Amino acid sequence: MNEFSIIDRYFNWHQSSVVVGIGDDCAVIDNDPDKQTVTSVDTLIGGVHFTSDTSPADIAYKSLAVNLSDIAAMGATPSHFTLAITLPHFDESWVSEFSQGLKEAARKYSVSLVGGDTTRGPLSITINVFGVINKGDSILRSGAMKGDLIFVSKTLGDAAYAWSQIQSNEKPSISLTESLNRPEPRIALGQRLVGIANSCIDISDGLEQDLSHILQSSKVGAIIDINKLPLSEPVRDYISNTGDWCVALAGGDDYELCFSVNKANKDKIRSIERELNIPLTEIGRVTTGGGLIVNGFSGECKSYSHF
Amino acid sequence: MNEFSIIDRYFNWHQSSVVVGIGDDCAVIDNDPDKQTVTSVDTLIGGVHFTSDTSPADIAYKSLAVNLSDIAAMGATPSHFTLAITLPHFDESWVSEFSQGLKEAARKYSVSLVGGDTTRGPLSITINVFGVINKGDSILRSGAMKGDLIFVSKTLGDAAYAWSQIQSNEKPSISLTESLNRPEPRIALGQRLVGIANSCIDISDGLEQDLSHILQSSKVGAIIDINKLPLSEPVRDYISNTGDWCVALAGGDDYELCFSVNKANKDKIRSIERELNIPLTEIGRVTTGGGLIVNGFSGECKSYSHF
Repeated sequence: MNEFSIIDRYFNWHQSSVVVGIGDDCAVIDNDPDKQTVTSVDTLIGGVHFTSDTSPADIAYKSLAVNLSDIAAMGATPSHFTLAITLPHFDESWVSEFSQGLKEAARKYSVSLVGGDTTRGPLSITINVFGVINKGDSILRSGAMKGDLIFVSKTLGDAAYAWSQIQSNEKPSISLTESLNRPEPRIALGQRLVGIANSCIDISDGLEQDLSHILQSSKVGAIIDINKLPLSEPVRDYISNTGDWCVALAGGDDYELCFSVNKANKDKIRSIERELNIPLTEIGRVTTGGGLIVNGFSGECKSYSHF
Repeated sequence: MNEFSIIDRYFNWHQSSVVVGIGDDCAVIDNDPDKQTVTSVDTLIGGVHFTSDTSPADIAYKSLAVNLSDIAAMGATPSHFTLAITLPHFDESWVSEFSQGLKEAARKYSVSLVGGDTTRGPLSITINVFGVINKGDSILRSGAMKGDLIFVSKTLGDAAYAWSQIQSNEKPSISLTESLNRPEPRIALGQRLVGIANSCIDISDGLEQDLSHILQSSKVGAIIDINKLPLSEPVRDYISNTGDWCVALAGGDDYELCFSVNKANKDKIRSIERELNIPLTEIGRVTTGGGLIVNGFSGECKSYSHF
């Protein structure tokens, strides 16, 4: 049983003020005549989400960034967050560096730390982040329509390739390490996609798995073209040498946005791309059903599963 | 360095929309012309906050209840919560029982689960709970005034005595076990204290420590009388036999409310007591300074410290 079936089977009950509950990037809550609160929570654990070499500042930065990425995928504006941190023991220099990394990310993305809890135990960090959005503006996973064009931002596989290099005792390049440790939540992009994209998700568990969440929620299928996936130089070289497309197709931790738009909005996407200076690549289109077809790829990737 | 100094030194920076930040039971956030959002987060860890014998349903129930208790201490109305759960492995019957206990507490206190994250690792549960309150109505730790009477709800030391019995391989009574595993957040009491109490806190780390938080925040002192502490029969017997007042004075996990009120409001407290059918006991009064003096007690208790 994977994470998604656990949540769906055991924790999917909610009440009427909750507009969107479990099963999207964020929950959406009505608490104002005009605006909605969006909220998302993520836990990062030592040895699972970061290595023992990762600096405390990077751990903090990433913990906040991956949560902000969920807010970005809704098109919302992040406002504040809470932190629950579990530490095996109190190490002042560790905590000091951690707080610096957290503050750096919080300032960069204009969010305030409003509450927290510290406990003693195996290292883990849980951040719950909040944002606001005008009523009804959230970009959901469930809005993809047949014929929509599918886009992804920037490049895919950088974080997964860096992680695999570290596992093999190789040293990733500075830019790959940056992708792994300091992912950039696409907040401005998400906000610009409100009213333009029909569906959106952030790629945390890999394109194949995350795009499939859109397809399931929207009850549609999709065809994407493996040769259209946007790749950085090092990932392109790695795939040329090994044929291992899975790094881009199923590698997690990229935190780029994957979204679908009506063909009529293609020009708008091009102008957002220029305005924000983030490459937005068309990788396929939404179909009526039959799951996700990846043209040009016949293998099978092991998707990241939480259990 | 204890939990409170860690938070104060490293994580106490926030922005202007945050009315009350780190350092009260909840953070208070302005996001509406009339109402404020209050939020609190707590992590419970296996072996620290519950024993390996604790049932999954009780773990879930308590995890939510202790968070709701923070909302109660502000006088707010809880509305929804998120859950981040880390499990060593997926055990369907465990998760099923856990979800039942969570649902039971959520229904009892009318709060919705709106989002969550599941990860693999050492067992821990982080709940972030939200509530609403009319602007400016929150009962803060910082409002105690010289001459205020100090009250606590129900009885003190039940959970700590049950825990100490379990540690000595004794079996606590059913009512003590209930106090430990299914604490009752004093939501109705907190709401009724709005406009009446000058300060309030929930007793999670023990009366001595938690009342001291009020005194520090309010820059006042207090004198309480050890013989006035409200005790259940088993705790009274235990103290008679052992002289160990610390179970009531410093024992954590009770989640009763400790609050201060102007003398003029004493009658109002008596009518709330009758209305809610919860004993509210006057244990002392607020003084100008000099910390907390406990009349009739000359020993020293080891307060719970997170590190």
